[in-house]
Amino acid sequence: MSFTPAIAEQRFVLDHIARIGELAASDRFAEATPDTVEAVLEGVGAFAAGEWAPLDRAGDTVGAQLRDNGVVMPEGFGAAYRDYVEGGWGTVGSPTEHGGMGMPFVLASAVLETLGTANMGFALCPTLTVGAIEALMHHGSAEQQAAYLPHLSTGEWTGTMNLTESQAGSDVGALRTRAEPLGDGRFSITGTKIYISFGDHDLAEQIVHLVLARLPGAPAGTRGLSLFLVPKYRLDADGKPGDFNDVRVVSIEHKMGLHASPTCVLSFGDNGDCVGELIGHEGGGIAAMFTMMNNARLNVGLQGVQVAERATQRAVAYALDRVQGARGGANVAIIEHPDVRRMLLRMKAQTQAARALVYLAASEGDRATLGDREAKKRLDLLTPLAKAHGTDIGNEVASLGIQVHGGMGYVEETGAAQHFRDARITPIYEGTNGIQAADLVGRKLSMDNGGVFLGHIAAMREEAKDAGLTALIDACEDVGRGLMTADADDRLAASYPFLTMLSVATCGWLMERQGRVAAGAEGDPNFLAQKQAAARFYVEQVVPEALGLKAAATARADVLYSIPAAAFAA
Amino acid sequence: MSFTPAIAEQRFVLDHIARIGELAASDRFAEATPDTVEAVLEGVGAFAAGEWAPLDRAGDTVGAQLRDNGVVMPEGFGAAYRDYVEGGWGTVGSPTEHGGMGMPFVLASAVLETLGTANMGFALCPTLTVGAIEALMHHGSAEQQAAYLPHLSTGEWTGTMNLTESQAGSDVGALRTRAEPLGDGRFSITGTKIYISFGDHDLAEQIVHLVLARLPGAPAGTRGLSLFLVPKYRLDADGKPGDFNDVRVVSIEHKMGLHASPTCVLSFGDNGDCVGELIGHEGGGIAAMFTMMNNARLNVGLQGVQVAERATQRAVAYALDRVQGARGGANVAIIEHPDVRRMLLRMKAQTQAARALVYLAASEGDRATLGDREAKKRLDLLTPLAKAHGTDIGNEVASLGIQVHGGMGYVEETGAAQHFRDARITPIYEGTNGIQAADLVGRKLSMDNGGVFLGHIAAMREEAKDAGLTALIDACEDVGRGLMTADADDRLAASYPFLTMLSVATCGWLMERQGRVAAGAEGDPNFLAQKQAAARFYVEQVVPEALGLKAAATARADVLYSIPAAAFAA
Repeated sequence: MSFTPAIAEQRFVLDHIARIGELAASDRFAEATPDTVEAVLEGVGAFAAGEWAPLDRAGDTVGAQLRDNGVVMPEGFGAAYRDYVEGGWGTVGSPTEHGGMGMPFVLASAVLETLGTANMGFALCPTLTVGAIEALMHHGSAEQQAAYLPHLSTGEWTGTMNLTESQAGSDVGALRTRAEPLGDGRFSITGTKIYISFGDHDLAEQIVHLVLARLPGAPAGTRGLSLFLVPKYRLDADGKPGDFNDVRVVSIEHKMGLHASPTCVLSFGDNGDCVGELIGHEGGGIAAMFTMMNNARLNVGLQGVQVAERATQRAVAYALDRVQGARGGANVAIIEHPDVRRMLLRMKAQTQAARALVYLAASEGDRATLGDREAKKRLDLLTPLAKAHGTDIGNEVASLGIQVHGGMGYVEETGAAQHFRDARITPIYEGTNGIQAADLVGRKLSMDNGGVFLGHIAAMREEAKDAGLTALIDACEDVGRGLMTADADDRLAASYPFLTMLSVATCGWLMERQGRVAAGAEGDPNFLAQKQAAARFYVEQVVPEALGLKAAATARADVLYSIPAAAFAA
Repeated sequence: MSFTPAIAEQRFVLDHIARIGELAASDRFAEATPDTVEAVLEGVGAFAAGEWAPLDRAGDTVGAQLRDNGVVMPEGFGAAYRDYVEGGWGTVGSPTEHGGMGMPFVLASAVLETLGTANMGFALCPTLTVGAIEALMHHGSAEQQAAYLPHLSTGEWTGTMNLTESQAGSDVGALRTRAEPLGDGRFSITGTKIYISFGDHDLAEQIVHLVLARLPGAPAGTRGLSLFLVPKYRLDADGKPGDFNDVRVVSIEHKMGLHASPTCVLSFGDNGDCVGELIGHEGGGIAAMFTMMNNARLNVGLQGVQVAERATQRAVAYALDRVQGARGGANVAIIEHPDVRRMLLRMKAQTQAARALVYLAASEGDRATLGDREAKKRLDLLTPLAKAHGTDIGNEVASLGIQVHGGMGYVEETGAAQHFRDARITPIYEGTNGIQAADLVGRKLSMDNGGVFLGHIAAMREEAKDAGLTALIDACEDVGRGLMTADADDRLAASYPFLTMLSVATCGWLMERQGRVAAGAEGDPNFLAQKQAAARFYVEQVVPEALGLKAAATARADVLYSIPAAAFAA
């Protein structure tokens, strides 16, 4: 099946959820006119459909492979990446002073969504580059920015994030990679990092690794971490990739999916010859990494949208084509059967909900860039929701996509199975969804003594019309207030169900608005009709489900600790 | 990780849910004494752990392979299957008059559960053989029974079900395979069947295919279908496998998981030399096939239990071992973190719930065998719940198993990913879960004018104590009564959420009972403590979620049909 960019939908959400028109009213984003937005979405859509989508299957079946001299991508990826760079699709959200288009982050997100819907594994490469750009923009020196950002902005060079070590997964504070001062302001880096997406590949002439490491005498835990810029090749006198910088690929993981994305074990300084520069100040690693991570978390939420959109398109096409069984006496395509329609409408509603949630968060990032400090707080609140709930939706929708295909969904040839396998990493990386839930009930709920959370509740309540939606918003407030004063175990025990409740309330609010707007809008009747149906389905059927989570979100931890750990094995 | 048979749990559920003691009070099942039950569970547990579990990984990585002369199983499977036959594990539930032990079906289910927990793909082979035995027991002639049942009972020969054709998936009435009378009471079979699990293999000297086909002049639809017994090798004068019967393996599917199970395309009569015998009467195919299918549906629900149990054991072992992060100031194994514990307790509670549901249904089958006609109706009501909800639980738990492993869950080496891939077929085959839901709101809800359903509601209500559980039972009654008189589209649109509500209510009833029994029981304190915790978690946290489905279960179909089919692609 061919992939179709969801342009009408993206435009609609940019207009009515991200309110890109408000952003374009600023000097900084004045270029983001309706015509330009349309041209960008159309352009990347045509590019992704023509060049990236056709490689999605080879990305899965051939996959990235480790050879003697590094990771080799499947045939066609090199040319398709070059065309991506030359088309300027990497530059949409990058700052103009470093060669980018300087468009709002939310528009860059829509571009990335389209690329990832066409080819989710491939699009992870630019996703990580965007994170590296963010970190350098906010924490790099002027020299570092000048040397690296122009090449990263275009995608000519790519970026990576190097956090995890085998003994330090979710517990970043346990990292051991070392950075020894060389006396000239540079550092010798030694250590092994795991789970480094696109840690090596043959798509670009340079790979810029951002590496968390510990200086001599640094304190234990996260406070002792600093961030280092470690290129694969040291820059020569002309600022071009020169000598090899002793960063070796040890292996790549044999994963269930996302095979187009090489997940590397990287060894730094095996020969004592890996040189890095400090980004920001000593001990500032975790703060700088959070700049990358928050960006990356939104973009992983966006991967949920990507895989959900692709799975939905594939399932709809199959259901329109596959004739099976009768309805009203005649043989029909399976889309005519009520339970198949229910699954498809749920897939559409959930995909749209996830997109609205992620775009809203991204647009709050743009408002923060414009100096709106409250928007920054709303972004912080929404980030764990977008990451966790966006990826939960990606997984649910990919699974429904298999179900719509019946037996054909379980054989690999149809592609539905690939989406299901690809999607499953997203609730894990960039902070597991459990970590997102902990972040929500820990840091985020308590921002401004709960003021940010309660402000979000108030904004939803003001606009929400449906009684069920209002009830869910009320329940979220109740639960959230309770969690603010709960003890740590109780708060964490309730964190995941609460995250889901609050995410669904937020999506319900955004979907209800979209349905209302669509009812009064002019345009493609099929688009507007399905938008209203999806919104209605979401508010009437998905929202009440989340109310069913209130018991779990108000349960305390005691049942979990009523038995010793060993009893779990009994 | 090694696999541990869940013997204490199986005994507990056999005693308090299946009430195997009542069954053993009958003449027919008098052999099912506590000592024998214990010996069977212990024996098959040791066998499965020693011989089948170690092959689970090769079943996935090597898998069944098609060679020139048929399907070849991975190394070790042949010997392990032979030992299964010689150990008599296939005979537990088979009738004594045909060489079986004649034990209750629910005990045979526990045996099959253990085998499938050790090696889910492998255990599908005996699962299908059991279905063939059932069909021959109820519909075969005395000659057919004498010729085939002794060999099928031991597992020396294996059985298959041949329904699906490429144009006829869920719509069995569209089948085209033909059976032409040869004039001597036998029939020439011609046609191609797809998705035939263990349609060929090298484990046994004979494979007995039960094939749905159409006689000349037979009416269209399911009424025109007859069931045929088609051995891979015709029986010689001594009743031994002789001449090849022109059943050819065309290909095997490239599936996402369950690689140990060869899913075959079988071609019957390519050379006009495939001979079959009619089972039962002409046009009786669908009835005979339902005998097999109902049995198989319970056993697929049981596969949900199998994969959930294995995924849970693996996740618990990992969480007890993996040290990451701190709690109360000290580094701890991740099982000490509240959200990880929540996932693990949910996995345990859901697995136990699925087991209770499947065992209850199986025990109603035993009561039906003993002549209890009401039990047969309860079995019919419970079958779609056991199949659909049991497999939904298998998938949810396998996914949680990955999540507990974090990044290690997504790489194939840990095995968590295999369970997730293996599980995903179970909501599809033996009638998709959507077909189960349609069966529930169609045939099953209306049995005895709703009397069977209302009897089940009354039985639950009589015993249930928790207010939330009672509320769910009430909601199920409300919704079920409404659906009895709803029009077809509305009924089908609500069918899946209703199935889930009724399943959770049933599981809640059974889990609450188990918690109560465990509170007053003597035995292994860890076992009894985790049982109470799992029961409490289920009733307090899972049951309320299902109440959240009431809106969807009372929604009508109109939102689904408010847009034209083409709008789904907009």
